[in-house]
Amino acid sequence: MRPITFSSLFAAATLSMAAASINSPSGNLTLDVDVNAAGTPVYSLAYKGKPVVTESALGLEGKEVSFASGFALTGTDTATVDRSWQPVWGEYATVRDHFRELAVHLHASDPDRYLTLRFRVFDDGLGFRYEMPMQDNANYVTLMKENTQFRFDADHTLFCIPGDYDTDEFLFSEVRFSGLEDVLAKRRGRHSESQAAEGTVIQTPMLLKTDDGIYISLHEAALVGYPAMLLDVDCPAHTMSAHLAPDRLGVSAYLQLPVNTPWRTLIVSDDARDILASQLVLNLNEPCKIEDTSWIKPMKFVGVWWEMFTGHVKTWAYSDHYRAKPGVTDYSALPSNGRHPANTANVMKYIDFASKHGIDGVLVEGWNEGWEDWCSYRKNRQFLFDKAYPDFDVDSLRRYAEARGVQLIMHHETAANAADYERQLDRAFSFMKQNGYNAVKTGYVGAIIPRSEHHTSQWMVDHVKHVIERAADYQIMVDSHEAPRPTGLCRTYPNWLAQESARGGEYEAMGTNPPSHTCILPFTRLKGGPMDYTPGLFETRLSYYNEGKTGQAGTTLARQLALYLTMPSPMQMACDLPENYERFPDAFKFIEDVPVDWSDSRYLEAEPNHYITVARQDKHSNDWYIGAITDDNAREAVIDLSFLPKGRKYEATIYEDAKNAHWKNNPQAYNIRTAMVDSRSKLRQRLAPGGGSAIRLTPKDN
Amino acid sequence: MRPITFSSLFAAATLSMAAASINSPSGNLTLDVDVNAAGTPVYSLAYKGKPVVTESALGLEGKEVSFASGFALTGTDTATVDRSWQPVWGEYATVRDHFRELAVHLHASDPDRYLTLRFRVFDDGLGFRYEMPMQDNANYVTLMKENTQFRFDADHTLFCIPGDYDTDEFLFSEVRFSGLEDVLAKRRGRHSESQAAEGTVIQTPMLLKTDDGIYISLHEAALVGYPAMLLDVDCPAHTMSAHLAPDRLGVSAYLQLPVNTPWRTLIVSDDARDILASQLVLNLNEPCKIEDTSWIKPMKFVGVWWEMFTGHVKTWAYSDHYRAKPGVTDYSALPSNGRHPANTANVMKYIDFASKHGIDGVLVEGWNEGWEDWCSYRKNRQFLFDKAYPDFDVDSLRRYAEARGVQLIMHHETAANAADYERQLDRAFSFMKQNGYNAVKTGYVGAIIPRSEHHTSQWMVDHVKHVIERAADYQIMVDSHEAPRPTGLCRTYPNWLAQESARGGEYEAMGTNPPSHTCILPFTRLKGGPMDYTPGLFETRLSYYNEGKTGQAGTTLARQLALYLTMPSPMQMACDLPENYERFPDAFKFIEDVPVDWSDSRYLEAEPNHYITVARQDKHSNDWYIGAITDDNAREAVIDLSFLPKGRKYEATIYEDAKNAHWKNNPQAYNIRTAMVDSRSKLRQRLAPGGGSAIRLTPKDN
Repeated sequence: MRPITFSSLFAAATLSMAAASINSPSGNLTLDVDVNAAGTPVYSLAYKGKPVVTESALGLEGKEVSFASGFALTGTDTATVDRSWQPVWGEYATVRDHFRELAVHLHASDPDRYLTLRFRVFDDGLGFRYEMPMQDNANYVTLMKENTQFRFDADHTLFCIPGDYDTDEFLFSEVRFSGLEDVLAKRRGRHSESQAAEGTVIQTPMLLKTDDGIYISLHEAALVGYPAMLLDVDCPAHTMSAHLAPDRLGVSAYLQLPVNTPWRTLIVSDDARDILASQLVLNLNEPCKIEDTSWIKPMKFVGVWWEMFTGHVKTWAYSDHYRAKPGVTDYSALPSNGRHPANTANVMKYIDFASKHGIDGVLVEGWNEGWEDWCSYRKNRQFLFDKAYPDFDVDSLRRYAEARGVQLIMHHETAANAADYERQLDRAFSFMKQNGYNAVKTGYVGAIIPRSEHHTSQWMVDHVKHVIERAADYQIMVDSHEAPRPTGLCRTYPNWLAQESARGGEYEAMGTNPPSHTCILPFTRLKGGPMDYTPGLFETRLSYYNEGKTGQAGTTLARQLALYLTMPSPMQMACDLPENYERFPDAFKFIEDVPVDWSDSRYLEAEPNHYITVARQDKHSNDWYIGAITDDNAREAVIDLSFLPKGRKYEATIYEDAKNAHWKNNPQAYNIRTAMVDSRSKLRQRLAPGGGSAIRLTPKDN
Repeated sequence: MRPITFSSLFAAATLSMAAASINSPSGNLTLDVDVNAAGTPVYSLAYKGKPVVTESALGLEGKEVSFASGFALTGTDTATVDRSWQPVWGEYATVRDHFRELAVHLHASDPDRYLTLRFRVFDDGLGFRYEMPMQDNANYVTLMKENTQFRFDADHTLFCIPGDYDTDEFLFSEVRFSGLEDVLAKRRGRHSESQAAEGTVIQTPMLLKTDDGIYISLHEAALVGYPAMLLDVDCPAHTMSAHLAPDRLGVSAYLQLPVNTPWRTLIVSDDARDILASQLVLNLNEPCKIEDTSWIKPMKFVGVWWEMFTGHVKTWAYSDHYRAKPGVTDYSALPSNGRHPANTANVMKYIDFASKHGIDGVLVEGWNEGWEDWCSYRKNRQFLFDKAYPDFDVDSLRRYAEARGVQLIMHHETAANAADYERQLDRAFSFMKQNGYNAVKTGYVGAIIPRSEHHTSQWMVDHVKHVIERAADYQIMVDSHEAPRPTGLCRTYPNWLAQESARGGEYEAMGTNPPSHTCILPFTRLKGGPMDYTPGLFETRLSYYNEGKTGQAGTTLARQLALYLTMPSPMQMACDLPENYERFPDAFKFIEDVPVDWSDSRYLEAEPNHYITVARQDKHSNDWYIGAITDDNAREAVIDLSFLPKGRKYEATIYEDAKNAHWKNNPQAYNIRTAMVDSRSKLRQRLAPGGGSAIRLTPKDN
């Protein structure tokens, strides 16, 4: 670690103070901060001399007092920090955290108010936040609005999803500012659990691309005690501004001072690969708060899920007696509907499969009482988290799984009744530990209860943090679905292995994820943290699962293997049915082999919405793995292996699309071949339309 | 127990069925039920041939389907039940539950809907509820409105408080229908945490008196999974109808069928004493659900509370550093404000006092972090229930109290953040048990969080039941303040010893409880269950507590002793400061002696708002205790002791107002004398204005 240097400059007793400016360590990025004539703080950001963000306002509007104008700049502090840290898991064994920091101290009078703006300029972007210190005239701030602006200077291309307080399960649009309103008008209200924000609103994480070829990934870091940030867009002005989900009283956040907001983040580069490689969001999060992390273990898993999700024949519910009441009905007196896969015998088959193939875990959905109702009727009580259906023998399964070295993963679907989940939380986690579970998938499908709240509101942000912290108390790992989208908190709470929080692989079951979708997620959603995308789909014909369906998932089989590299996650599913893996054992070998934790990552090729090629080194061996994917178009990936240690030979096992492969009509056409390579090699891999390639490199020096 | 007899009458295939009618066992009350021309069920009730409730509509309005009209009567069931049960604690060792029951089965078509109305006619009143059985066209009912009407035939006198979704801490008005609107107009919005219901709305429990001298106490029983009932009043029509608190979505209740509503209850008599003696509300509740009740022990207690409440000098908060954050601030590094009575040394003094005087428990308020904020700002996190202030040594106090045989009582003020309380509940109760606490006083001061809810809404009703059930799991007794008013659930959950849920003795500290207040509460509020009214105020000059105050509580000292009889509760406080009790040790002897659990009770004199005289027999001895109170006017209570066993002699120790006593200017003037009495005696006790008398009768046969 290099030494940290500090400097401080306090205001002299002059009327106005000079604007502050700071460069990133390499000088690529320049940040300017000033206070305008109205006393509103403003900032701008330039990259290699070109404007990224033009003069944009900052400020917070409290109900009691405003922090938006009337300010004078009273002092600044600067620091240069260069340090590194070792994540418990991730894309890199070591992450460098290197930035220059500028703290701008502001004062407004009548009444006296103090605000500090803290900026960190990295070589790959900017993070800034508001800090409200202790002060006499604002012990609390009931936050009504955050005024943060992001003004751009041209009609850039946006990659974004509609603004919604309750869901982020949308496809991304690629659209200029000038076309955004039309696109959003068509998208409104399509999702059952959504409450669309009024106006022209989008969500982060989102990406911009300028006509000069600069990429800007816009998001936030360390979302704690604050609602998630959406963005109001003024299209003609090319301007976005923060939009926070209000609660029933129109309040965005209840803040007690001293308080820091989340960081607003811009990852900036003229090389798309830098956006993918950036660890800026993680760097802006607090270090790990869990002292003993030895129990946190990245894993692959299969699950009793896809057979219900795809088919509309099998059910999460044990019974078709829709009148059955969780906790009241004696389910043992009801007949099973015979279509309930979360039964002991079937789960044992999954355990056998996982054990045979070295898959760490088995997720079981539909094991507990409450599924007859699902999220219908928004009842105050919904699921029971310590009451299994009569055909799911918790004790037998614990013993069966333990004997085979397989980890059962619990499922806690809450039907968005977060209040009810909190009511049961300690008991639910106790039940898990008593029965040998150390990981849980949580779900929040539906409209949030408490009914004053949204998926993105402060209360829910608090809720999810509470769940993660309590889980850590019980040494439980968490994979959250339908929770507020991630902002790098997995650094602070590494038991939070993954989240969904985007349109996942499950939409492939409806044939509606185009190949481009997984070419944009790593630029956007994944900047907040790993996604439980559920790759590994080998059977892509929808009719296979459901006679009534036609169509096809937007992927070849080989591409599904590549997703284990391009969509990295420490909790990675193999989503398909065991029977489909048994049909393609040679291809499944790659899923068996591929790690879920890495010592290094190299992004080799990238263009949002079009293609990604990445190489990663296994954290526990000298093997490298490579994944390459393309969009709807065939492509030749050029894989330059110069990152390999010079002089060392590797055997490459290449899983690739066959020549005639195509996601639409020939997705299962793949080849597996081997080749000897070294750091001088350049592999040219043809990717089919919707295709991909996955490669394992094993050292063969001896 | 007498045999239960059943009879059943099913509809023949005729177009309309005869109306149903049923009498109470003695024949005093007659109930008629019919279906009117619109197919709406109607009922009426008569007492000794005089109308009590004239033809009034019944029905429920669901969002999905209506249960309000289009019905035909398809059958009835009747039964006669005469049984008795033994409460864990209460006014009687044995309670007789004797009624005739009429179940009216209704059917409506297009679509088919089924509804059963169940009526129980007791000699002292009526209870009825809606029962929605399993049916094909309504698995769920999202209840928007309950149509239950109570139509009266004249301009009766009402004893009632304003309708409010969030508080019941009002004085009662005595007003006719014709004057109600004027009275309510003056009362609106006076209470900080109230959200007044729109329109002419009052709350139950309330009382009516007809000009014929019939008393009608209107309330509900077994409020579970449903909002509390308020009453819309149509004054010119002398009609009340159910008004249920809506949630944010306008919904009153989310109901899964089969479901029964709470019972709507009318206690009826031409003798006011019968209203007080009635156990109808308890009888309509389910039997005790707690198997082992050996740990439930009625108690008296003193508390570190009054010295903060009265003075506005001493504080619940440890620190005046209003910026201190619970769970964040290191309070041990802060100076105490020196005005924090919940400190170890002071609590030890209370323990010493309790131990010396045989008082079972000591309540301590202000022991835990969070009081600097109180309910300000409606934050998502507020109090910590497992973190004591640094001057409150949990461990030392546990040992000190145990050594002296005194029970410490924990305080859980939630600032109405019920969501946050649920989040902490299991940990809070674990903390209590680890530290030797077996009783808790809960509090919900402020506006409810979740912000979609009210104190009276279904969610809060569910919340409180959850707290009581979890408390029972931990063998913890509960005294709830600011919770939905009681409906007899203490029969089912006898660990729910008491509630506040009305304007309590604390208002005496503001000199605003007139003597009549405790002469109406037993007719209204207490019909739902015991109240933690906090009697025992010996020093009634407000200036004693707070130099800046003038005025006087509305009571003599002797009356405060009588309240232990007229306001019976198994968790009964002696609210005043130990120093004030030490000034009047002879009077305090009565509080030391008086039991809190009874084998029998005899109401000897009663008139709402004016006077009550009651005698009760100790459950654990042959002693009887008598309490008599009056309103603002002096009165002679005539205490007929004919209830005593014939031939047995008792020594009466009489605590009475001195001749010149008056609540306004001479409240502490009392006499204590003894007399020998037997069943032929008739004591004539003069009660001063705002005064009372308390008597202990001890057998002196030997």
